[in-house]
Formats: sequence, structure tokens, C-alpha cells
Amino acid sequence: MGFSEADVISVLKKVFTTSDPRVLVGIGDDAAVVKGDAQQVVTTDMGVADVHFKTEWSSAFDIGRKITAANIADVLSMGATCDYLVAAVSLTGTEELSWIENLARGMKDEADRAGAVIVGGDIARSPVVTIAMTAIGHTVKPILRSGARVGDGIFISSLPGWSAAGLELLTKEISLNSSTADKALSEFSAPSLDYKVDFLKASSMADISDSLLIQAQQVAEQSGVCFHLDTELISQCEEFKELSELAQEINSDIWGWILAGGEDHVFLATGKDLPGIRIGTVVEGSGISGVEIKKAPVSWSHF
Amino acid sequence: MGFSEADVISVLKKVFTTSDPRVLVGIGDDAAVVKGDAQQVVTTDMGVADVHFKTEWSSAFDIGRKITAANIADVLSMGATCDYLVAAVSLTGTEELSWIENLARGMKDEADRAGAVIVGGDIARSPVVTIAMTAIGHTVKPILRSGARVGDGIFISSLPGWSAAGLELLTKEISLNSSTADKALSEFSAPSLDYKVDFLKASSMADISDSLLIQAQQVAEQSGVCFHLDTELISQCEEFKELSELAQEINSDIWGWILAGGEDHVFLATGKDLPGIRIGTVVEGSGISGVEIKKAPVSWSHF
Repeated sequence: MGFSEADVISVLKKVFTTSDPRVLVGIGDDAAVVKGDAQQVVTTDMGVADVHFKTEWSSAFDIGRKITAANIADVLSMGATCDYLVAAVSLTGTEELSWIENLARGMKDEADRAGAVIVGGDIARSPVVTIAMTAIGHTVKPILRSGARVGDGIFISSLPGWSAAGLELLTKEISLNSSTADKALSEFSAPSLDYKVDFLKASSMADISDSLLIQAQQVAEQSGVCFHLDTELISQCEEFKELSELAQEINSDIWGWILAGGEDHVFLATGKDLPGIRIGTVVEGSGISGVEIKKAPVSWSHF
Repeated sequence: MGFSEADVISVLKKVFTTSDPRVLVGIGDDAAVVKGDAQQVVTTDMGVADVHFKTEWSSAFDIGRKITAANIADVLSMGATCDYLVAAVSLTGTEELSWIENLARGMKDEADRAGAVIVGGDIARSPVVTIAMTAIGHTVKPILRSGARVGDGIFISSLPGWSAAGLELLTKEISLNSSTADKALSEFSAPSLDYKVDFLKASSMADISDSLLIQAQQVAEQSGVCFHLDTELISQCEEFKELSELAQEINSDIWGWILAGGEDHVFLATGKDLPGIRIGTVVEGSGISGVEIKKAPVSWSHF
């Protein structure tokens, strides 16, 4: 490695320098000082090379965006605004300085989309690249997983499954020249967060990071209700046709991708007259009804 | 590994469960919700197995305390109070469930000492145990590294060097039956933070995590002054005699430990009539004067 820790810090300071008025003391002291709020939202999420991302498959920029998006999504799914992020990154020492800079630029790019600012970090040496981020936001009224009520509609901000489809293309080494395949690969490398979907009136909300079924199951359990999902409703949404074509093309199961794929960071919400895609109704009981998975999708275990 | 991610989360929830009134939404939702403050302090610090700690040398409890202390120290060194912590931990899958529980208990133990509460976390699989924590605190008036003024006294909250001494005992496989050796080993495994030393009236403050010389150099530079250190003053403090005996016993250089050892998390401050140990005076110029290192101590590069 032809550069020192000081070189890396110098590059990171350049990328993350900010004149954001919320940042009172930025990078360079023992800690950052930022403007706070009465109700702060805090979450942390870690990505490990070859577990959550592969440097052979994704650019440093996309890896930076992906882990940042995962953290931001957890803040947004509380009905909160994301304000600040910090990143702790371990490097193997074989990375190019440009790779590290692009990782930081990816983080900043996603933070910018959310209106958030990266205010601090730490770097360490390790045999494996590991990226741990913490996101801090604020909310007046947090939207919890426990708030779903019988009679509420169940909504998603967009169709999940694209990331799982991208992962299947990569693991099976299928190369397709189509816009749907490109979208799947892109969503796997760095998911698009649905910043524009307004779920602030939702009765419950969660981020679909493990899979629609897993998170729906969790929200149903924490709310003491049953989530009745309607595959007819799901299959009527515009994106379904696109994803369905891709599934047919590579002979895969679209429902595995949609229901059991993870890493999309689509938002799941319940309530009345919400925007997004309606996929079912909250009913009495427990667990999930209305769907079954024929085939588990290709996926990584993250633990 | 005879347990699942759910088992680990169940243990962690049990260890970290809290009725602290500052925590509005605790572990179990997408993010925690906590009471905030006008000026929040945020810092993150990562520890990697065999780089920052060794599982052969330190108990899980001490490893948990050590990384938590490192994060808390960065908050305290801003003149702030530490309120909240989150932890992202990667595990190899060969750990016992009891090891993971003790790691969490060590984190909680140190958090309790600081009056802080652990409000969230993430676990991931990795070839190497990695612990990234983020600490959040609050302050009315942050104490920066840039505030040292010519004429200020230079103070430390206690004598650094114990952790470096402990590391030397371990790397050289020296086994001594003495209270000073025990103290060195204990401080290496998990440093004692100087919670009782009140540096709130300091003009500048930093945490000595890399070494006294490195952090003094940084504070001097950020303040545009010179730190004149006085080895006579340092050698008059009570702990110096103890550490000196240990250095003589194993034929090592006490000044290497004190000036260039790291990982003690002692606080360095400047100002008038501060408590702690006076070690010098802020003078005009730049850098450090008054000391030289004869021999660099045994240490790890963390990057």
C-alpha cells in the first residue's frame, strides 16, 4: 500500500467536508458536534465483504451507497428524517486510494439524496473490508412496527425482488442485454430508496431489508394482527410485468424474489389511503396469510 | 455453532433491556428513538480482532469494555456527557453464546459507568470479529482541540503508559507476580476511564488514544501553539513511581510507555488551575518541546 493513514484521512476529509449549518464541529476533533432534536432516531448497520457485498461485483461507489442506504432506510422507516451519519471502515491494505475515495463518494452521494451529512468516522486495518455505519435522525412522531390495526390496508413503496433477481443473475453468471436485467443488477449493487413515497400517516412501518415475508411477519407479530397479502393486487402493479419478464427469461420464480428476496430497502406500511402499492389488508389473527412460496430464492445468509 | 441469529438477539435483548426514561423506543424496531438535546456529540470507533484486541489475551467482557470505553472517551473529551451507544458486531460463528453474552455485558458495564445506555445494534457474519460502536452525547459548550492558549497549563487526568506496559508484558510473554504488572495487564485489556476528573473548564481537551505525544502534537497544531512538556513534573506524580518500578523490572523505557504508548484513554487538557496532573505549559511556537523518545515502545499499528 503506497499510502498512509494520513493520506486516507486527507482524502476522506476532502470528500466529507461540509458547510452544512447543522454541523457545529465537523471531522477533525475527538467527536462531531451537531444540532440535535427532542426525539432522536438512531440505528446502526454493518456490511462485510463477501457477505453483504462483493468487490468483484460492485464498484466502491455502489458499495458505499448500499450500506449508507441500508442505514438511512432504517431511519426513514421510523417516520423520521435522516440528519447525520458516521462510518467506521476496516481496510485490508490492498485497496487503491481511489477505491477508498470512491467508497466515500458513494456514501456521500446517498447521504446527499437523503439530505443527511456524514460527520465522522474511523478507519482500521483488518483482513476483511467491513463497513459499519450509524445513522441519526429526528422525528416528531415515530411510526412503530406495533401500530398496525385490523382493517388497515397494507402498502409497499415499490416492488421488492429486484435485488434478489440481480443476485441470481450474478451467482448463475447469466449475462442478459436487457433493461430489466440492468435494473436488477443495479438494484443489487445499490438499491434505490423510495425517498418520495410519503408514509408519514402510516399506522405501522418497516424497512424490507430481510424480505417482504420476514418483515411482514415481524410487523404482524409486533402489532398482534395477521397480514393478509393478496398476490392479485401485487401482480397488478406496473413493475410486476417487468420483473415477471426477467423471471421467465431465466426460468426463475418471481414470487421467490418478491416475497423472500432481501436487500431492497422498500418500505412496508399499514394504514388508510396511503400512496404506493396496496398489497393486502390487516386482519384478525397472527402471521401471514394469502401467499405461499414455491421455491426459496438464491440468497445469502448474513449471519 | 449450535445457536441461531435469533438466539443471539434474544441474549442481547436480555443484556441490553432498559427502563431508562431517555429511551423512548428501544431495541426491536427499525431504529431506536431517544430523547435528544440541542447540541449532540457523535463519534464512532472500530476494534478488530488481532489488531485492537486478542481473544487469547482478553476476556470477552474486557473486550466489550475496551471498545465501549474508547467511544465514551471521545465523547467525554469534548466536554460532553455520553448518553447513548449502538454496537455493530461481526462474529465468525465459532464463538460460544456465552462469549457473545459476556462481550455485551462488558459493553453494558462500561456504559453504566458513564451513565450511558446501549440502544441498538447489528450483528453480521465475518471471518474476523469486528466491533464498531457509535457514541452519542450532549454538551452545552464543546471543548475543542483548537482552544489551547499560550500561558495555559497542560494537564492529564492520570498517567498514561499502563496499557503499553501491559502489551509489552504480553508480547514478551513476561509473567510477573506484582500489583503493578497486574495493573498494566488490566489497563491493556480494558482501560479505566477517568470519569471523576473534571476538565469542564479546560480551554482544550483530547483523548489520548494514540499516544500522549501524538495527541499533544495534534492539539498544539490545531491550537496554533507549542506544548512544552516537563519530564520533571511528570515524574513527580504518584503513579510514576509504580510504573517506573515495572519498567526497571523488565528493563524497558518508561518514557516510551508514557509518551508513545497508546490505548490508555487518559484525557489531555489545557487551562488554568485544572485538576489532574500538570505536565507542562502552552508556549508560543508549534509542535512539542521538552521531551525526546529514546526508544519506541512495542505497539501495534492500527492501520
